[in-house]
Amino acid sequence: MASKLIAIVAGVGSGTGAAVARKFASNYPVVLLARNPENYEGLAKEINSKGGKAIGISTDISDSKSVKNAVAMIKKEFGENVGAAAAIFNASGGFLRKPFLELPEDFFAASLNVSANGGFLFSQAALPLLLKGVELKSEHPPSLIFTGATASVKANANMASFATGKWALRALSQSLAKEFGPQGVHVAHAIIDGVIDIPRTREWLKDMGPEAKLSADGIANDYWWLHTQPKTNFTWEIDLRPAVEKW
Amino acid sequence: MASKLIAIVAGVGSGTGAAVARKFASNYPVVLLARNPENYEGLAKEINSKGGKAIGISTDISDSKSVKNAVAMIKKEFGENVGAAAAIFNASGGFLRKPFLELPEDFFAASLNVSANGGFLFSQAALPLLLKGVELKSEHPPSLIFTGATASVKANANMASFATGKWALRALSQSLAKEFGPQGVHVAHAIIDGVIDIPRTREWLKDMGPEAKLSADGIANDYWWLHTQPKTNFTWEIDLRPAVEKW
Amino acid sequence: MASKLIAIVAGVGSGTGAAVARKFASNYPVVLLARNPENYEGLAKEINSKGGKAIGISTDISDSKSVKNAVAMIKKEFGENVGAAAAIFNASGGFLRKPFLELPEDFFAASLNVSANGGFLFSQAALPLLLKGVELKSEHPPSLIFTGATASVKANANMASFATGKWALRALSQSLAKEFGPQGVHVAHAIIDGVIDIPRTREWLKDMGPEAKLSADGIANDYWWLHTQPKTNFTWEIDLRPAVEKW
Amino acid sequence: MASKLIAIVAGVGSGTGAAVARKFASNYPVVLLARNPENYEGLAKEINSKGGKAIGISTDISDSKSVKNAVAMIKKEFGENVGAAAAIFNASGGFLRKPFLELPEDFFAASLNVSANGGFLFSQAALPLLLKGVELKSEHPPSLIFTGATASVKANANMASFATGKWALRALSQSLAKEFGPQGVHVAHAIIDGVIDIPRTREWLKDMGPEAKLSADGIANDYWWLHTQPKTNFTWEIDLRPAVEKW
Repeated sequence: MASKLIAIVAGVGSGTGAAVARKFASNYPVVLLARNPENYEGLAKEINSKGGKAIGISTDISDSKSVKNAVAMIKKEFGENVGAAAAIFNASGGFLRKPFLELPEDFFAASLNVSANGGFLFSQAALPLLLKGVELKSEHPPSLIFTGATASVKANANMASFATGKWALRALSQSLAKEFGPQGVHVAHAIIDGVIDIPRTREWLKDMGPEAKLSADGIANDYWWLHTQPKTNFTWEIDLRPAVEKW
Repeated sequence: MASKLIAIVAGVGSGTGAAVARKFASNYPVVLLARNPENYEGLAKEINSKGGKAIGISTDISDSKSVKNAVAMIKKEFGENVGAAAAIFNASGGFLRKPFLELPEDFFAASLNVSANGGFLFSQAALPLLLKGVELKSEHPPSLIFTGATASVKANANMASFATGKWALRALSQSLAKEFGPQGVHVAHAIIDGVIDIPRTREWLKDMGPEAKLSADGIANDYWWLHTQPKTNFTWEIDLRPAVEKW
Repeated sequence: MASKLIAIVAGVGSGTGAAVARKFASNYPVVLLARNPENYEGLAKEINSKGGKAIGISTDISDSKSVKNAVAMIKKEFGENVGAAAAIFNASGGFLRKPFLELPEDFFAASLNVSANGGFLFSQAALPLLLKGVELKSEHPPSLIFTGATASVKANANMASFATGKWALRALSQSLAKEFGPQGVHVAHAIIDGVIDIPRTREWLKDMGPEAKLSADGIANDYWWLHTQPKTNFTWEIDLRPAVEKW
Repeated sequence: MASKLIAIVAGVGSGTGAAVARKFASNYPVVLLARNPENYEGLAKEINSKGGKAIGISTDISDSKSVKNAVAMIKKEFGENVGAAAAIFNASGGFLRKPFLELPEDFFAASLNVSANGGFLFSQAALPLLLKGVELKSEHPPSLIFTGATASVKANANMASFATGKWALRALSQSLAKEFGPQGVHVAHAIIDGVIDIPRTREWLKDMGPEAKLSADGIANDYWWLHTQPKTNFTWEIDLRPAVEKW
């Protein structure tokens, strides 16, 4: 039975998404979604070579057909009756800190399309699988977890594009938490309030010491903790930041 | 000089938008934007017949070309150097209370396109005119006011579509308030937390007495009050609800 | 009838309280409460000499007996059936920015005692008069307005004392708004997010220009606007800050 | 070294406090604080009989002398150099749902005195021990955790007393999180949004099924999870509610 339960991670790169996938891979076969196969191929290989199971599917999360295709491929791989124990939305629209009047409208629309429409399309695809997970009596309540950011609760100057998408995603997660909690699906939202320690940020905040950045593995642990909460004790939202972060 | 300052209202129908337009028309020529000319023709006639000045422009606020065309027509009418004393975004994506898995993806995308992209396009069109208003030394700080709703701060079950757009719009307004306040433009957001008393809602809440619904003229007064706040005392956000509303 | 309606301002000094009292004095006899008579004597004289009516009552707002004595004196002056059109709570516990472990416990307790217990005692004293104002059909819905601060919504490091009292007061105002709105009393809370331009702050923020500080008269205007909102359109909360303020 | 690190739980009864104490007792000697010894005697006996270590100290958390006495007794028991790995504030002012004008002022003051002053006194007593825990290199960052409630973020009608204290406590926790995070102490706040399943609530919500109430042991697990977060990934706030809870 358990073999029918999978975890799906949308938005896999070198950071949080990969760490989350590794963590959940120790309990479930994982499906890795990213537009660019380069973003999941190495990770899938790594997980499979360590005795886990992972498949990657090239998916544009903001495109309905592409998301539907991903679901079809999941069912082809794991069977029509596959259920999901966890689905994590880690994709994000582009980040551009810019005076508002210099924001290209295409950039704004594309960014919103990933954060808000992408969150919607992913949720509509994942929730039937998560409800199937409820039916299949997954060990832990099936979980739908969204990755937020500082900009999910604070819309600073020059951040209109990123913040707009992140607030929209947070609203989506709250509405879904209220609707699907009673149906047994645990919907959660994590506000990542700081810089994550990944290859791309290696040179950042160096003068603040080794603990000034969030650990991606730590975030993965926190998502796992959310996943293991029982139905009596669901958390909708956590914030996460380094101890030294100013906020 | 003052004759060069106009007010622009996006989203004019039989309710808040019309009331706001009437209110601001007593001080400024007003530009009425709505997709359907039926929504502004009568109102424009009414304002013009009472000694004010109003023009309507058929505009799809979620369409970049249409919004740019509106700006071109405004300049044709009021001159290249026209400034805005006020711009009010009162448009809203469609409202659909529905179980999430029954939400059509086209509806969700279209709704978000009005609330979030529409808010963006309107702001990019209006802010240069509002900054021009600063330059032209408008009597009151030029104001960009967004109409929000209960769903701007609370994303209830079955409300994912409306709430997602409204949270996005609120984020936009906060980011713009922080960026353009120091440049002299007053950006505000109003949370309308209740049913507005308009023809469409005539039969609603009848058993709760005559004061159970928000007055659209009252909202217009509140927007005017926001507009007249001096630069030392800007309000970003107000909530508005009937005294008897449960919240 | 109107002569029976008064306005009460708790916390009168050289800033917001005095400006609010002057503003409301143009419509109502005003009662000025402050511990130290020096804080209201000049103001009462000023108002009375300009054709208004004002009396001051030395009151420790955190002391139950003192507050009850103030009510008794109000009734002695204006009659047993006096009603209130407005009651403004502008008192504040002491402000001390200090590392938490250096905060004297007496200071913390005294500060909380003014902000939270004082708000409670003032509300229990004022609400019967405001409900009487409803009965006496005051022109505008009787209003109970609380002055908040940045620290009402943000509890920064080294600000535990001030923030604790201000969050408590904001909670009080929200609970009262929900309970007394349906009874016709308008309860509101104003987040003053910036430095107010008063004699004590004359030297502050000088390099930021003449508009970097909130105008106390502007705040008074905003309170008056809140007061004049009709029962269909009550605002619970506004924020107020200079256009140039970073937030 | 580890033997010098203790956990302190303020507010121990038959519910959350006891569950938290049991959980932390598997790793640390625990100190149980409650006014009434009946509230901790059985629990201390239980923990000691199962191989843990627990002592109870009769403490009025709202009384400075009583709290100082508790610290003295802790040092007498565990040595002058004792450090704390965790301190949990689970005490609460009295709960009284009542029309505001019927709230006895003594009740309001006493309730605030526990929630706000009690939180302050406990924090001033515990933080030096927690900082000592940092110095002693506790395995997990020393943690100061506050128990909040629905009323920590929502101040409903007839709930002025409870909400006022809970908002104040939340402000305290946020200010402390910002000040002591950089010093290595993890300060967190948990919003318990629902009925906890304890003997006193056995008869409540029976028609909603066995999972309609929060598990106290689940809350204890969540507090333990907060305690084990590394310095790179601190959570300030979590909410916790049953899956079926309406919110």
